Formats: sequence, C-alpha cells, structure tokens
Amino acid sequence: MKTTTTIKEMSILRREIAGSLGFVPTMGYLHEGHLSLVRKARAENEVVVASIFVNPTQFGPGEDFAVYPRDPERDAALLLKEKTDIIFMPSVEEMYPPGFDSWVRVDKLTQRLEGASRPGHFQGVTTVVNKLFNIVRPTRAYFGQKDAQQAIVIKKMVADLNMDLEVVVLPTVREEDGLAMSSRNTYLNPEERRSAPILFKALTLARERCKQGERNADRIRQEIISLITGNPLAKIDYVSIADPDTLEELSVLNGPALASLAVRFGKTRLIDNILLD
Amino acid sequence: MKTTTTIKEMSILRREIAGSLGFVPTMGYLHEGHLSLVRKARAENEVVVASIFVNPTQFGPGEDFAVYPRDPERDAALLLKEKTDIIFMPSVEEMYPPGFDSWVRVDKLTQRLEGASRPGHFQGVTTVVNKLFNIVRPTRAYFGQKDAQQAIVIKKMVADLNMDLEVVVLPTVREEDGLAMSSRNTYLNPEERRSAPILFKALTLARERCKQGERNADRIRQEIISLITGNPLAKIDYVSIADPDTLEELSVLNGPALASLAVRFGKTRLIDNILLD
Repeated sequence: MKTTTTIKEMSILRREIAGSLGFVPTMGYLHEGHLSLVRKARAENEVVVASIFVNPTQFGPGEDFAVYPRDPERDAALLLKEKTDIIFMPSVEEMYPPGFDSWVRVDKLTQRLEGASRPGHFQGVTTVVNKLFNIVRPTRAYFGQKDAQQAIVIKKMVADLNMDLEVVVLPTVREEDGLAMSSRNTYLNPEERRSAPILFKALTLARERCKQGERNADRIRQEIISLITGNPLAKIDYVSIADPDTLEELSVLNGPALASLAVRFGKTRLIDNILLD
Repeated sequence: MKTTTTIKEMSILRREIAGSLGFVPTMGYLHEGHLSLVRKARAENEVVVASIFVNPTQFGPGEDFAVYPRDPERDAALLLKEKTDIIFMPSVEEMYPPGFDSWVRVDKLTQRLEGASRPGHFQGVTTVVNKLFNIVRPTRAYFGQKDAQQAIVIKKMVADLNMDLEVVVLPTVREEDGLAMSSRNTYLNPEERRSAPILFKALTLARERCKQGERNADRIRQEIISLITGNPLAKIDYVSIADPDTLEELSVLNGPALASLAVRFGKTRLIDNILLD
C-alpha cells in the first residue's frame, strides 16, 4: 500500500494504472460503512484508491470542521487490512492553494434538505469530489446511502458534466440497535447515544406504514415527528418524504420515496434515511 | 475525418485514441484565428479534435445567440483541409438535456471586464468547456489570445479543479488593417468595418506609450479612450489596463499588463487586447 499527500505524486501513480480503478473518497475516521465501500471497490476493480480529506469547504461557519474526529494511523491500518492499494491524504493547502477560486455547483437538488439546513455545504462537496475525480480518475466511485442527498447530487454532477465514471451507492451500515454508522456518532454522550436509535425506529415505522398501504405522506411525516419528539433529547431539523430523484416533497405516495431526516442530540447533528417503495 | 454529433460516439472514438490529443473548441464560423489554433494542434499532437457548438449558456438575454453566424459545411471543409481528425458538433439538447443543473464557476476573475459587462457569460463558458474537456479528454486545448480573459479564466479552472491537460494560448490573428479576427466582424456594416481598426490602433498607441516609458496607467487609459471616442460610431463599453494574472486594474505600470477593451459599433460589440511589458 502506498500513501501519498501530493496531487503530483497521486497523478504519477495514476498514470501507471492501466486497469479499472475503484475509488472511495472519505473524510477519514473510518467505520464499517466506509469499509463496506472499500470491500466492494476491492471486489469490483483491479486497483483500489481511498482518499482521506476533511474538506473545509463543505463545513459552514460554526460547524464542526475543527473538531471533526481524525485518526489517520488507525485509518491506514484499516485500509491496509482491506487491501487498499493507494491512500491519498492531501493537506488543505494542497487541495485549496492560496487564490483558489473555482467552484462546482448543482443547483436545484442542493436547495432542499441538507442543502437548506447547511448553506454552501453541497458546493463544497461537489467541488472537492470533482477535484478528487479529476486527480484519481476512477472507473467507479463508491458512496454510502447514509448520505442519500450527497449521492444523488454527485450522480447529477457526474451526468451533467459528462464525467467518465460510474457512481456506486451502497446500503447504510448500522449498529446493532439500528443507529446508522457515522464518524459523528463519537460526539454523542452515553445518554444521547442511547436515544439516537429512535431515528431508525421512526424511519422503520414509516416503511411499515407504507407497506400497510398508507398513501398520505403527511400522515407518515407526522408519525415520524411524533415518535422523535417523544424523546426529550431530540431536536428535529427536518423530516422529509420526497421524490428520490428530484427530492421534491411528496404529499401522496404512489411510487418510490425517500424518507430522510436530520435531528440534533445536544451539539450533534445526525442524519438518516430509508427508501419507501 | 469523422464527424459526430453525440457525446456517446465521441466518447467511443476517444477511447480508441492512445496518443496525444489536441483539442480546439469553437463556436464555428471559422476564421484564420481558429485555423491557427488547429494548425498548432496538428503540429503538436497525434490526433486533432475540433468542436463546433454555439453555446447558449454563455449568451445573456438580448445577446446574439439566435443570430450568431453558423456555416457548419464551410467549417467542416476548412477543418478537413487542416487535417482535423474528428469534429464534435453536438446539438444544444445533447449538451444541455432537460433538467441540466450543474455549473462550474470561477469567481473573482469573472467579475471584471467581460464578466462585469456580460453577467453569467463566464459561467456558461467554464461549464461548457469543463464538459467538453471531460468528453474529449485532450492532452492540450488551444485558445486564442483575442479572448484574453476567457483564456485566463479557463487556465484558472483547469488548475483549480486539477484537470489533467495543458491550456495553450496563441496570438490574436488580425486582418491587414489590424482588426482582430472574429466571427462577429460579419455583423459590421461597411462604415462600421472601416472604423473598427481604431481598436487595434488605440491598443498599439498604448504599447508605444508604455515603451516610451509612460508608467501612469490612467494616462494611457485616457489616451485610448480619447482616440476611440474621436470616432462617432464607437461606443466604449470598457477600457482596462490590468494585471494579466488577477485582472485587477493598475494605476502604475511596473510589470506586465493587459490592455483590453470592449467597444460597440452599432449593434456589434467587439473586444480586443494587447500585452504591455
């Protein structure tokens, strides 16, 4: 396994690769969710590249960029175990040199849900992912369904800008009690951690209601909200039942839908989602 | 020479090319300026691709998108003569399918000069050039110095987004009387056409003043303005003497500078520039 911190060296390594390349872009502090992406990349490609970069441009002012958990040595050990070929770990200065001033933006899709709650977040995501795709030039890039809107936005960018790669989205990996794995789970205190599985419980309830034949999206939304607000530690940011392609809110369920939510426990903001169909 | 109108076919043709690829993106209605780019691309690369696409997103409302001159048959004959290998001529629907919503933007550099006069113009340019670069994947892409700010903005996009290609900028090609070649020169009526060389005369005067030791950029700007406003058909949009990297206006000349201007003759808006050093 090679580790490189410079774009130049990564580009040189890339030129030596002739076969298929699977790429897993991460912000590090890896958990089983990330590792499931690496395993799939390993199974489907001749070469596997993972990046570790806590991208400042996708954090808003007052968000958790400075305290986002980092453990590059542990990450490298985990990636080695999964037979990753190359780790790309650039510094902030390497990715955003002084005077950096070019941005990639997906418009409508990013004005909803996470985009509405976190202005500028998706411009940071699409810009850094565009750069990483140009540097690594993957055959396939792997993302988790946990960040559902991110996956949809990146697919849209790749299609609209004619980027020559396949975006693969893999299921959310969960703790035994249903909590979606996230590097941010580490922020939760024990009491918050005990409450957090309420998110998946609420989403599972939504899916059950849908399977029972409920077609009124407002009623399902209201059930999710009632269940979560029953927990005194949970503060809802949004609860959405939306078209999985356009992310427009639905009032009637008559096809696939994405139930997604963002909820704060103390200072920690968690997101989760489930597909209804 | 092959001509293709679809992204899919262009991508297939691209995959068959192993050697260096020179790319000349154009809006068609080719003149000697374009052909000088094709000749350089031909000399420096194993394969030459030219695109012809009048890009609607770089025209503002009320600009000349609908009437922009088009003559694809003549263009194809000229490109064949210069030994172009592939012409890529997509339709607007091919490049911007319904729901297209991703944009590439260079910020500061595009707020000046042409960007100030034509809001949204450069977002259209960078978006379409980004797409074309992703589709054609050139080793080198060729642009004319005539559109000086465009060349600077595209170089910035390529650097910031880590696109793996070289941007080559070639000198402005001029008519015998000094008028910079432009597809838009065809809009000029005979009287306007006789007046138009005043732009290059004014820029040449600026260079002479600079060579004579004038270091006051305001005085040079004023001389350009005086000379041009002496022509009753000319209406100045802007006259700029700026840093050639940042495009910030200069008051003192103590290094290379870009003298550039935009002037209207009737309905026709012409631009030109010259380097001062």
